[in-house]
Amino acid sequence: MNTQDKLCALRRKMDEAGVNAVIIPNADPHQSEYLAEHWQVLKWLTGFSGSAGTAVVTPKTAGLWTDFRYWIQAAAQLEHFTLFRQGDTDVPSFDKWLASTLSANDRIALDGKMVSAAQAGSLKKKFAQKGIVVDTTMDLISDLWPDRPPMPRTPAFALDTVYAGETRKEKFSRIRKKTAAYNADCHVMAALDDIAWTFNLRGQDIHTNPVNLAFAIIDMDQIRLFIDPAKLSPALGSSLEADGVALFDYDDFYETIQKPDKQSRVLLDPESVSDLIYQAIGRHSDIIEASNPSHMFKCLKNEVQISHIRDTAVKDGRAVVNFLHWLDTSNAPKTEMSAAEQLLNFRKEQDAFIHPSFDAIMAFKAHSAICHYSADPDTDLTLSPDAMFLTDSGGNYLTGTTDITRTVHLGAPSSQEIHDYTLVLKAHIAVATARFPATARGYQIDAMARRHLWQQGLDFGHGTGHGVGFFLCVHEGPARLSTQPVDITLKPGMLLTNEPGLYREGQYGIRLENMVLVIKDRDTQFGSFLKFENMTFCHFERSLMDKTMMSLAEINWINDYHQMVYDRLAPGLDTPVRQWLKEKTKSL
Amino acid sequence: MNTQDKLCALRRKMDEAGVNAVIIPNADPHQSEYLAEHWQVLKWLTGFSGSAGTAVVTPKTAGLWTDFRYWIQAAAQLEHFTLFRQGDTDVPSFDKWLASTLSANDRIALDGKMVSAAQAGSLKKKFAQKGIVVDTTMDLISDLWPDRPPMPRTPAFALDTVYAGETRKEKFSRIRKKTAAYNADCHVMAALDDIAWTFNLRGQDIHTNPVNLAFAIIDMDQIRLFIDPAKLSPALGSSLEADGVALFDYDDFYETIQKPDKQSRVLLDPESVSDLIYQAIGRHSDIIEASNPSHMFKCLKNEVQISHIRDTAVKDGRAVVNFLHWLDTSNAPKTEMSAAEQLLNFRKEQDAFIHPSFDAIMAFKAHSAICHYSADPDTDLTLSPDAMFLTDSGGNYLTGTTDITRTVHLGAPSSQEIHDYTLVLKAHIAVATARFPATARGYQIDAMARRHLWQQGLDFGHGTGHGVGFFLCVHEGPARLSTQPVDITLKPGMLLTNEPGLYREGQYGIRLENMVLVIKDRDTQFGSFLKFENMTFCHFERSLMDKTMMSLAEINWINDYHQMVYDRLAPGLDTPVRQWLKEKTKSL
Repeated sequence: MNTQDKLCALRRKMDEAGVNAVIIPNADPHQSEYLAEHWQVLKWLTGFSGSAGTAVVTPKTAGLWTDFRYWIQAAAQLEHFTLFRQGDTDVPSFDKWLASTLSANDRIALDGKMVSAAQAGSLKKKFAQKGIVVDTTMDLISDLWPDRPPMPRTPAFALDTVYAGETRKEKFSRIRKKTAAYNADCHVMAALDDIAWTFNLRGQDIHTNPVNLAFAIIDMDQIRLFIDPAKLSPALGSSLEADGVALFDYDDFYETIQKPDKQSRVLLDPESVSDLIYQAIGRHSDIIEASNPSHMFKCLKNEVQISHIRDTAVKDGRAVVNFLHWLDTSNAPKTEMSAAEQLLNFRKEQDAFIHPSFDAIMAFKAHSAICHYSADPDTDLTLSPDAMFLTDSGGNYLTGTTDITRTVHLGAPSSQEIHDYTLVLKAHIAVATARFPATARGYQIDAMARRHLWQQGLDFGHGTGHGVGFFLCVHEGPARLSTQPVDITLKPGMLLTNEPGLYREGQYGIRLENMVLVIKDRDTQFGSFLKFENMTFCHFERSLMDKTMMSLAEINWINDYHQMVYDRLAPGLDTPVRQWLKEKTKSL
Repeated sequence: MNTQDKLCALRRKMDEAGVNAVIIPNADPHQSEYLAEHWQVLKWLTGFSGSAGTAVVTPKTAGLWTDFRYWIQAAAQLEHFTLFRQGDTDVPSFDKWLASTLSANDRIALDGKMVSAAQAGSLKKKFAQKGIVVDTTMDLISDLWPDRPPMPRTPAFALDTVYAGETRKEKFSRIRKKTAAYNADCHVMAALDDIAWTFNLRGQDIHTNPVNLAFAIIDMDQIRLFIDPAKLSPALGSSLEADGVALFDYDDFYETIQKPDKQSRVLLDPESVSDLIYQAIGRHSDIIEASNPSHMFKCLKNEVQISHIRDTAVKDGRAVVNFLHWLDTSNAPKTEMSAAEQLLNFRKEQDAFIHPSFDAIMAFKAHSAICHYSADPDTDLTLSPDAMFLTDSGGNYLTGTTDITRTVHLGAPSSQEIHDYTLVLKAHIAVATARFPATARGYQIDAMARRHLWQQGLDFGHGTGHGVGFFLCVHEGPARLSTQPVDITLKPGMLLTNEPGLYREGQYGIRLENMVLVIKDRDTQFGSFLKFENMTFCHFERSLMDKTMMSLAEINWINDYHQMVYDRLAPGLDTPVRQWLKEKTKSL
């Protein structure tokens, strides 16, 4: 079945269903960031394999919207779809385009399982202004896809309290308390990382995300977990039941929520449940809209987790230093892909390593200017001693998740490369040294980093930082450091990245990323103040720093940080690596 | 009628009306920031004269909520009302307190004329969660107030196009275009400064705010202005009618909106129309919610206005420099209040000055630590050469509105005072020198200023800046520089203040305020960048600066700014003042 056949079949379906357009988001029924193959409908239909995009099909036009990260890739992959460069000047968003294309009383199909209640609500409202109906009750795709990959079925396993720092029963109790505080008596969960955290369960149903496909319903006298029974060993099943969890098959969930329960007030997060779930429950119960309690609980790491994260930072730092040493000293021929393999091997040597926390970005020369570059056999560059090399990677350990980026030059850097590296380093240090009141939000910290670039007419197109899970997803809400007005205050226990960058298209890119933990600073008569503790140990590149651009405070910060990196990592490094690191971390 | 009598009468009314609580906001039917005396119900009922507060009366409790600026004043003024220190630890907001006090099926009265549709909607939704009804159809107060001051009736006058830079007909046309773009065919306005801007009318119905009480309805074939006819001279009435404005009495407005018009889609800003207006129109028309088009148009100053603002900055700067010179050199006895009078006299000497843009803050010693201190005969301090003196003032000229704060020491400053002044100056310079992309929002600029204080465990409780009108209100939306996540991008033509501060309770306060205009900086391959142009000319206090705390760039900025201040102001200053200013602006 080629793309044209698929489009014909889809348009026939649209005709039968009486709809004038269909919207196909890149999504699963859990509003996950990354998708199991089973849900890669967009890729199957359009041929585009990027991680973000939306397709819209009308009788005349088939369009794909994707953001600047994927414009080049999409242009190369799409054949029968028109590329809409989302965010480009004068390119309308897919909903604006649709609103201008359709007429009053036209109907749009959007599978309510694959869109969050919040997004569906906002689209329905927008289109209603033009008298256009968005119908979220139809799935026009599934029947068209004969050889669809099966649902993932990896085994689930328990994350021991030794790592999690809190039993699932304690977590149930906190969630129930919060649910009651919202004046609700039931809470329905669909977000996979929230469920994994709540039940102290892990799996590998999504590539690099250690989660299990599941739904959960927590009410005041029972806890129901909907998960494929084949995933659970008898021992794990018993242990869940011993903690008061009633087990049901994954597929039973949709039937369960059709029927009114004794509960009448259900706490739902419209951002993290699908429109289908929201509508089904809304038919028989009062919905109280709020973020999942587990969403905030999960992001505040407890003392046990923090202690593991500190240890993990040392292990992961050794793996990356071993890698950078290999890169600098080994005479073996290297490519972007072989470098990724080498780094993975160094991580595998570390205790309690499970798998990467995302597919490593290994980007040489102009590839490093592509924020989300992913090397494949067609693009894989051979490394040579004449350009910048950006390496962004992380590990999922039983003891925590890591995320680190370093940029090095494999030969002799130009003065512009040194200038740019130093500027990004100054932005990084601005975050690392920030002290802020307990009322501060991430956008304020982001602005402090960005100012160094803005003053010179430079900028970067991603956030300065994102939350990181604990042996979970490398991108975790709700806090982040970004330009967006996200009204979430930074709280002690939040683990974030600090990763300003600078990308010169066609030339090179620089990103410098550590993880940082929000910790208490001090109380003054002006309030309670917070600061960051570094949770990544790996040197920065001295040969790319221009001291004349740095303040004394910035130079001191680098020297202190480098001293700490050496002190913590050296004991576990082989002698040649240790000596090499000594040189790399010597005082500026 | 004393407070106890008023409360008895109000409770009798509540009983008759069958309500369990009444909420009394400090507001008028136009959601104005400052209130004509006619609408100072809160002051009449409670005795509290601050500019922000909310009273709640139940059969058992009479409470007044006000923020930290007014805690001391309210404590002194209230007798039969309990003071709730809004924002203080463990003090519930008035709505939370009410929700915990009342029971399901209880009813709250809140006069729908005196609350914005947005706030009423949010309160109704919150209370509905507990089954409590908010009834916005009753006014329980008006009948109780026999000697209520009359509605203001100052004459209206036209602001000539020579000042406004755009005719009212051009403005009508822009508003209609924007209304149509929202797919609406009618727009109803209640915000007094938006109406003043749109019709090129000014008045003085609110102390220091040159506006007229009015409503307006703009649809595709007529423009209706509802205003007391006594305010309009025959010539002004004719000129409005010649521009296609149909004139109606102010009181006709409420009757007009009851009846369905031929229009069916009405553009309304729920933040700036009252709940009464919103509900009345909603009964017969579709409401399209969006900010008033004039709200954004008004804040983007045109070239004619900008040229006037530049000239006004020079005039106003001369008045303030004359004042600071008098403060420094005159041997006359001085108090906070006499200083205010002296500054007003210097402003009155300037061309096209109409009246102050707000009541000047003249705050000596510990008074300067009170952000919104207002001297009165009971508090008026005699100035002596031993402490800090903060002066925050502004003028309303036909050629623009000004707002400036300077802080000086009348004797020999302590090292802590010098340290604090320098820190606030660094925050001020961070804003003055900021360069930022055209996508930047005010909270990012605010963070750059605040960082200097945060790093030392210090902070200030107000925004770094607010919008300023053009011969209009000194506080103007929608853009501002604050900690809040307000999603308004900064655009060329916006006039803002830059006013970081630092307040040591019981000791002294410092605030340094200039006005700045957003202007184009440059285009780079990273986008279009903006910066600020200073729109205030007055020196800062050299004797309060610690050069060792300042970077070379900061020192250079001060020297350049001082040179510019001298060059622009000197030609219009008397010789002694000019010589004094030369000394004050000499190179650091």
